Amino acid sequence: MRVTSSLRNVSPSVSSALKERVRRPSYLKKLAQPADLAPLFQNDDYIGWSGFTGVGYPKGVPTAIADHIESNNLQADPATKKKFNLFVGASVGPEVEDRWARLDMIERRYPHQVGKEIAKGINAGRINFADKHLSMFPQDLTYGYYSLKKKHGDPSKPLNWAIVEATAVLEDGSIVPGASVGATPEIVQSAEKIIIEVNTLIPNLEGLHDINQSFIPPHRQPYLITHPSDRIGTTSIPVDPERVVAIIESRQPDNTSSNAPENEDSKAIARHLIEFLSDEVSAGRLPKSLLPLQSGIGNVANSIIGGLADGPFDRVQVWTEVLQDTFIRFFDSGKLDFATATSIRFSPEGFDHFYAHWAEYKDRLLLRSQQVANSPELIRRLGVIAMNTPLEVDIYAHANSTNALGSRMLNGLGGSADFLRNAKLSIMHTPSSRPTKTDPTGISCIVPFASHVDQTEHDLDVVVTEQGLADLRGLSPRERAPLIIEKCAHPDYKDLLHEYYDRSLHECLKRGAGHEPHMLRNAFKFHTNFMEHGTMKVKGWD
Amino acid sequence: MRVTSSLRNVSPSVSSALKERVRRPSYLKKLAQPADLAPLFQNDDYIGWSGFTGVGYPKGVPTAIADHIESNNLQADPATKKKFNLFVGASVGPEVEDRWARLDMIERRYPHQVGKEIAKGINAGRINFADKHLSMFPQDLTYGYYSLKKKHGDPSKPLNWAIVEATAVLEDGSIVPGASVGATPEIVQSAEKIIIEVNTLIPNLEGLHDINQSFIPPHRQPYLITHPSDRIGTTSIPVDPERVVAIIESRQPDNTSSNAPENEDSKAIARHLIEFLSDEVSAGRLPKSLLPLQSGIGNVANSIIGGLADGPFDRVQVWTEVLQDTFIRFFDSGKLDFATATSIRFSPEGFDHFYAHWAEYKDRLLLRSQQVANSPELIRRLGVIAMNTPLEVDIYAHANSTNALGSRMLNGLGGSADFLRNAKLSIMHTPSSRPTKTDPTGISCIVPFASHVDQTEHDLDVVVTEQGLADLRGLSPRERAPLIIEKCAHPDYKDLLHEYYDRSLHECLKRGAGHEPHMLRNAFKFHTNFMEHGTMKVKGWD
Repeated sequence: MRVTSSLRNVSPSVSSALKERVRRPSYLKKLAQPADLAPLFQNDDYIGWSGFTGVGYPKGVPTAIADHIESNNLQADPATKKKFNLFVGASVGPEVEDRWARLDMIERRYPHQVGKEIAKGINAGRINFADKHLSMFPQDLTYGYYSLKKKHGDPSKPLNWAIVEATAVLEDGSIVPGASVGATPEIVQSAEKIIIEVNTLIPNLEGLHDINQSFIPPHRQPYLITHPSDRIGTTSIPVDPERVVAIIESRQPDNTSSNAPENEDSKAIARHLIEFLSDEVSAGRLPKSLLPLQSGIGNVANSIIGGLADGPFDRVQVWTEVLQDTFIRFFDSGKLDFATATSIRFSPEGFDHFYAHWAEYKDRLLLRSQQVANSPELIRRLGVIAMNTPLEVDIYAHANSTNALGSRMLNGLGGSADFLRNAKLSIMHTPSSRPTKTDPTGISCIVPFASHVDQTEHDLDVVVTEQGLADLRGLSPRERAPLIIEKCAHPDYKDLLHEYYDRSLHECLKRGAGHEPHMLRNAFKFHTNFMEHGTMKVKGWD
Repeated sequence: MRVTSSLRNVSPSVSSALKERVRRPSYLKKLAQPADLAPLFQNDDYIGWSGFTGVGYPKGVPTAIADHIESNNLQADPATKKKFNLFVGASVGPEVEDRWARLDMIERRYPHQVGKEIAKGINAGRINFADKHLSMFPQDLTYGYYSLKKKHGDPSKPLNWAIVEATAVLEDGSIVPGASVGATPEIVQSAEKIIIEVNTLIPNLEGLHDINQSFIPPHRQPYLITHPSDRIGTTSIPVDPERVVAIIESRQPDNTSSNAPENEDSKAIARHLIEFLSDEVSAGRLPKSLLPLQSGIGNVANSIIGGLADGPFDRVQVWTEVLQDTFIRFFDSGKLDFATATSIRFSPEGFDHFYAHWAEYKDRLLLRSQQVANSPELIRRLGVIAMNTPLEVDIYAHANSTNALGSRMLNGLGGSADFLRNAKLSIMHTPSSRPTKTDPTGISCIVPFASHVDQTEHDLDVVVTEQGLADLRGLSPRERAPLIIEKCAHPDYKDLLHEYYDRSLHECLKRGAGHEPHMLRNAFKFHTNFMEHGTMKVKGWD
């Protein structure tokens, strides 16, 4: 398909910036304007975008498609309405995705999202969303599991379109991504038609990435990585040049926001954790340099990484999904030797600093695809120390990472279970309570029964709140529950939780079912009480 | 420690059978009688046994310890009472473990068990039990996670004792296990003192096993396996000869029972599954020889493997945890090329046949440690097709594999989540209902909310009952629920489940929380109704 030949406008002229970035001349002949590409997208198309944690996503074409739909008022009439099936490694900038959601342009969106409007659409029943372990999403895409209902186009390709951002194009037509890799290799591989947005505002990041080929069983090979800095691939993502239908030039930055600020609770959690890790080093169960760290996004992660920058550990390695601003401080402290991830999600100021000091960081940093960064194989082999924040944890250490009150989707599972299931030390950190409109501690993050389970009791080693740390390793459920309540619950909830456990134990032992005691009739009483009265403080268990 | 020097009796004489099996002469000097070893075990000792799925466990010494405790009436007096912490790869023969449980000799038992008395002790609160992914148990043992409270003995070793069965001892002192490997390599590696039970009744199985060294991070290496028949280790388990304190001769067989017989339901499930797999081959998503199969224990597994022996697939490979009798038929059909597992759990007749025809099977079969057989790395790389039976599955595809009514432990998680989390196709099969005392369909295996979650919605691709098969790949929760109910639920429960879902959807959409609709106040009503009225047939949802 020669898309550009069907374009109405004359091809735009090639800027010198673009010419410098695109070393494959034939691509320059496919230079187009986003507005000209927009009408080519049909209702029910399967579309993949680059991007991960709001970084490295396409800006020009998705915006032009939204403009086209809005200015032609297409959504008002069922005959012209367009809804798309959208697949991205993780989240993208809300200015793009939220706009698509607001215009009701999204039929289906996998496997992770961040944005007010997209979450609203999912929870209002307009958008089909399924979250999935981020390590598995790209492989399930290439297996064809997400395109079983794809109606038009080449049936051997899961996607009609890939729209991907690049910071450079090499002579062989392969692309150098921006500050994330995510699922872009598999999205490019899965698409009938590829549009490349070359971002000339962001520096050419050639050398930052390690891109390996992704095989399908029975032809899959081991990942020969035994250290976070090991390289197993090339510096760019292979692209079939015949499937490239257009390139555009883009000069829009990644629309990231500032990192969540630390507070007293997050600092207390970090102190508990660093003390625990120090004890593990003293006991000989961890090396002095620890083991490769995974840390999520948010203020607790900020405090932990900040604490490590001032902490007792040297030559630390990081094997994680995403890096946020505090990692700059960690690098600059001299205590962080090497970090690898699938995405760098800095604040705008963080990116400015990073790009300005690129030479200092580039040899201590590597970005991989999410299939590798989140791979169980590697997380287990390296013995990663994984730290993540749930919505709630129950008294036996099942955690809910996704659905408030069991039903309302926030962002999705992400890589939490990839890491927590396979790490050497699996740690969940959360404040012990959260405020509601009427009660400053109206939500307890320690509950009798998690209202949705993403991580099971078989996956967690440590639960920590600002109140304290519960080391669950080697404990049975009847040992775990009193310890989690005692160490981690907010004082406002301790008695209620102890009473839930004691009564459950009594009732279950009476009927010879006391392995993991519950009163199922009361298991969600915290949650139903909250729905009715705006607080989890129940009157009792009768 | 020279245990044998402290023994009261004269060393027994060495039988010719034993002499033939033990090629390390120094071990023969340590030959002992079980009864003489029994008094050496102290209260609160940490003990590891060989064994997996009731095969390859030590019989002589554990029985002698129980005899010693019983005949001296030690348990009657708190001053003489002995309780042990017992660690075995998975289950062992009930005649040994159940007797220990009945005598209240077990303080702690990880990570899996099968037996009436042991389950009774766990659910009565006398035995601390925690189930764990079977791939993780051996590594957590070597990390020292189970011995954080160990009080006496060498603090650098997690176990005071290992008691392991062997079918031969090689010149270097290493041991050839019986028909299971399980966690024996790590148990031997973790123990201060080792007792070897050489079983001269079972044939010398040298050559059946592939034993690789188990490293601790940061020194862990890739498993260089890309085909079920690949070997990465040696044929025997390394043993430090200085830690071998005694050997005994044993002539007791593994106490296995017959396999569960097929029935109409299990055959219907197998038909649905084989049809699904055939369709996947036709669609080009699976090779004609399929991908390596994992299949659990039980009558459905029997029907599936039996169905494959008569089925359309050739040159099939098996990568699984345990082989049961039907695999003999599968081998004999000529359609099974190669099988690897960590245990062979045949019936007594199955073992007789297998040992008699050893030459025909030995080159098509390999046993590995459970850390390798259940390894996420390998299950994902090979693209295994995993099939397991849960207690119940909920309408969004969370499964309960372990706790009846959320609290009563049956056997434990086993390897189900190792496989289902990482397989290319993750399949749960179950009858749609089970009988209670008063109602032949009093238990629905499809429930609104799983009363315990071991497998999450992010892990399952297919749910199948005798009613039909629900292909969940690529579906959102709101698409999954009606499909699971329609295809899989028993007709007695379809309307109730549809009504639960419809009402939940209505309520949740109203408050903008409709991603995974639930009525938390009613989520366990099937279960509480069963506890009160002996059936899950609720009167309605008000």
